[in-house]
Amino acid sequence: MALDAADLGPATSLTCRECGESYDLGPRYACEQCFGPLEIAYDFTGVTRASIEAGPRNIWRYRGLLPVPTNVQDTPNTEPGFTRLVRADHLAESLGMQRLWVKDDSGNPTHSFKDRVVAVALAAARELGFKVLACPSTGNLANAVAAAAARAGIRSAVFVPSNLEQQKIVTTAVYGGTFVTVRGNYDDVNRLASEIAGEQDDWAFVNVNVRPYYAEGSKTLGYEIAEQLGWRLPDQIVVPVASGSQLTKIDKAFGELIKLGLVEDKPYRVFGAQATGCSPVAAAFKAGHEVVRPVKPDTIAKSLAIGNPADGPYVLDVVRRTGGAVEDVTDAEVVEGIRLLAGTEGIFGETAGGVTVACLRKLVSSGALDPDAETVIINSGDGLKTLDAVAPVARPSAEIAPSLEDFRASGLA
Amino acid sequence: MALDAADLGPATSLTCRECGESYDLGPRYACEQCFGPLEIAYDFTGVTRASIEAGPRNIWRYRGLLPVPTNVQDTPNTEPGFTRLVRADHLAESLGMQRLWVKDDSGNPTHSFKDRVVAVALAAARELGFKVLACPSTGNLANAVAAAAARAGIRSAVFVPSNLEQQKIVTTAVYGGTFVTVRGNYDDVNRLASEIAGEQDDWAFVNVNVRPYYAEGSKTLGYEIAEQLGWRLPDQIVVPVASGSQLTKIDKAFGELIKLGLVEDKPYRVFGAQATGCSPVAAAFKAGHEVVRPVKPDTIAKSLAIGNPADGPYVLDVVRRTGGAVEDVTDAEVVEGIRLLAGTEGIFGETAGGVTVACLRKLVSSGALDPDAETVIINSGDGLKTLDAVAPVARPSAEIAPSLEDFRASGLA
Repeated sequence: MALDAADLGPATSLTCRECGESYDLGPRYACEQCFGPLEIAYDFTGVTRASIEAGPRNIWRYRGLLPVPTNVQDTPNTEPGFTRLVRADHLAESLGMQRLWVKDDSGNPTHSFKDRVVAVALAAARELGFKVLACPSTGNLANAVAAAAARAGIRSAVFVPSNLEQQKIVTTAVYGGTFVTVRGNYDDVNRLASEIAGEQDDWAFVNVNVRPYYAEGSKTLGYEIAEQLGWRLPDQIVVPVASGSQLTKIDKAFGELIKLGLVEDKPYRVFGAQATGCSPVAAAFKAGHEVVRPVKPDTIAKSLAIGNPADGPYVLDVVRRTGGAVEDVTDAEVVEGIRLLAGTEGIFGETAGGVTVACLRKLVSSGALDPDAETVIINSGDGLKTLDAVAPVARPSAEIAPSLEDFRASGLA
Repeated sequence: MALDAADLGPATSLTCRECGESYDLGPRYACEQCFGPLEIAYDFTGVTRASIEAGPRNIWRYRGLLPVPTNVQDTPNTEPGFTRLVRADHLAESLGMQRLWVKDDSGNPTHSFKDRVVAVALAAARELGFKVLACPSTGNLANAVAAAAARAGIRSAVFVPSNLEQQKIVTTAVYGGTFVTVRGNYDDVNRLASEIAGEQDDWAFVNVNVRPYYAEGSKTLGYEIAEQLGWRLPDQIVVPVASGSQLTKIDKAFGELIKLGLVEDKPYRVFGAQATGCSPVAAAFKAGHEVVRPVKPDTIAKSLAIGNPADGPYVLDVVRRTGGAVEDVTDAEVVEGIRLLAGTEGIFGETAGGVTVACLRKLVSSGALDPDAETVIINSGDGLKTLDAVAPVARPSAEIAPSLEDFRASGLA
C-alpha cells in the first residue's frame, strides 16, 4: 500500500516495546527482530489546553495526541468519547470513601469503550489504504466495528464464536456488514483472523494488524478524565484488565499530559481489576512475578475473559511503578458490584463495571486503596449487554392482582 | 403539602388546555371545571443564547425554560440530554434527500428520551414535597424512573404488567427500588396507579399526578435541536407519536424560542409517525377528523403502543397548523427502518426509531415531505431494548469452521 499520502497526525514512527527497534509508520504490529509489540511514537507540537477545548465534544478534541489525520472529524464516524465523569457520592458513602468518580463509558455510541479504539483504528486504517474494517470478537468489539463501518460507508467483516449469545449476534448483524460465526472458541476465531489478515491485503483487523493504532484510542479515557477534573490527575484510578491495554494506555495518557505541561506533575496510583475466574495478572501481581501465566477463563465477565493478556507484563510494570495493585473478585462479587453501582448511582454497568466496583470495595477493605484520596473508576460497558449475569437476582419485589386491596396487602405502600 | 418554599423556576401557574381555567402551581393534573389536562404557564426572564450556552451540557442548560428550581443541577440526578444531533448523509442519500439529521436520544443515561421527562418530574416532585418517585410503565419509563430515583437517593415504585419481557424486568429491578408486577395489561396497571396515587399522598407518579411537569421535559428535545443546528429551526421534523406529548412539546419549544427571539421566526412543518398496528392519530389525520378514536394496539413498536393517546387531538392541531402529516407503517416496514438506520449511519434504534425512519421514507415517497428541505428525525430509544423485533432478520452472513479453506469457500473474501 502507498503510504506517501498518509496523514497520521503527530505519529512519527513505530517502536518495539521490547527491544526499542524503530520502524516507519505502516501496517505493522510486531517487531521483525524480537516479535515484541509495536507502539506509536510521536512528535507533539502546539497542543494546549485551549486547542483541545476548542475541539469537538468527542475523542477528536485530542486528535493532536493520536495517530489520526488532522481533519479526522470531517469524515463520517461514530464520534465516540467525552462520556460523563459522574460524581458518585452515594457509592462513596457506602464504601466509606471521600471523593469518588465514575467514568461512564456506557454512554458511547454502541455503549462500550470499544467505540474509542475502533474509531482510531478506522481513521488510521483509511490512511494506510485498507478497504475493509474487520475483527475477531466476542461481543462489544463486534458491535463497535460493525457500527463504525456502517457509519463510515465501508465494509465490515466480523468473526465471532458460533455459540455467542443471540443478543450479541443481533446487535452486530443489524448493521448489515459481513458477519461470520465460527465453529470454535475465541482462540480459534482469533487465530483464523490472523490467517485471513495474512491473505487479505486490504483488510484491517483492528485488534490484529492495526493494533498499534487501535490501542492508542484508550489514551482518550485518560485525557478526558484529566480534563473533566479540571485539568488535574486523580490520586487513584481503578481500571478493568482484559488484555491490559486500557490500563497501560491511561497511564501513558497521564504521562503525556504531565510531559506536555497540561496537568501538574503529581503522583497517582493505578489499580487493575479482574474477575477471579480469569485473573492471570492479579495472580502474577500477588505472587510477585514479572511474567503472566495464561489461564483458561471461567467467569461471567466475558468482556474481560482473556486468559493470555498481551499487555499483562506492562500492567504489572505500571501498577508496581505507581504503587497500585491488581485485585480480583468472584462472580458473586461481580453481581453485587453491578447492583451496588446501579442502586447507588443509577448506572447499570456491564459485568466489567461490576468487576471494577467490586475490586474497588475489596481494595478499600484491605487498605490497599486510600479511601480519603480522590479516586476514579471506569465503567467500560453497558449492563443491557450482559443481562444474564444479574437476571437471577434482579427480580420484582412482588406480583399482585390489579386491585388496591392486593396492593395494600403487599405491604409495599 | 406545603408549597410556600417551592422553587419551580419560571413556572407561574397551571392552565387548563381546554377551558383556560388557571390554578396555582401544585400537584394537580386535571382541570376541576372540565377535566381537561393542565399545562404549565411561565414568565420567562433573562434567558439568552449566552445564558443557555454557559450552562451544563445536559437539559439543565434550559432550566430557565422549565418548571424546575434554579439550582436543579446541584442535586444528584442522571443529567440527561444534549444527546447527539447526527448529520445523516448516507441515510439521506438512500432516500433521495438533501439535508437530514438524526436526533439520537439513545445516548441518554438509560438510553431513551424518558430520562428527560423523568428528570424534570423528579425535580418538580421534590419541590412539591413528594417522597417517592413512581410510575406505571411497559419498559423505558420504568428503567428511567428506577435509575433516576437510585441516583437521587430516594425510593422508587414502579408498576408493570406481569407478562413484561424478562430483559425489561431485569433492567428495572437492578436499581433496587420497589418493583411490582401486576397481573393485567397496561390499562389495568395504569388504572391501579391512579388509584394508588389517590391514596399515597407523597407518591409522585410521574406520568399521572405530576404529568404537567413531566411532559415539559420533552421541550428540551426542541431546544437542543435548535441550538445544535446553530440556533436555527429545521424546515421539517418527524416525531414518533405514542401519547403525542413529545410532538406537541417540541412544537411548544420551537414556539417559545421564536417568541424569545432566540431563533429566527420561520415556518416549519411537524410530522407524526405511528405503527399501523397502533395508529389512531394517523387514522384521524387521514380521515380529516378532529377526534381520535381509541384502538387496541397490535404492533412490535411497544413503546408507541398507546391506543388512546391523551394528546392525540393536540397532535392533529400542530400537524395541520404547520402543514405536516401523520403517517403510519407496518411492522415489516418498522424492521426495515431499523435496519436502514443501522446500515447507513451505525445507529441501532429502538422500534420507535424504526417507525420514524420508515415513516420518513413513506412521506418522501408520497411527496408529503420535501426531500430538499432540511429535516430532523427523532430516534427516541435504543435497539438493545427491542432485540426481538429484529432477531428474525438480523442473522450472520455465514457459519464456517475455523479454517482458511472454509473461509475461502464461503465466498466472503
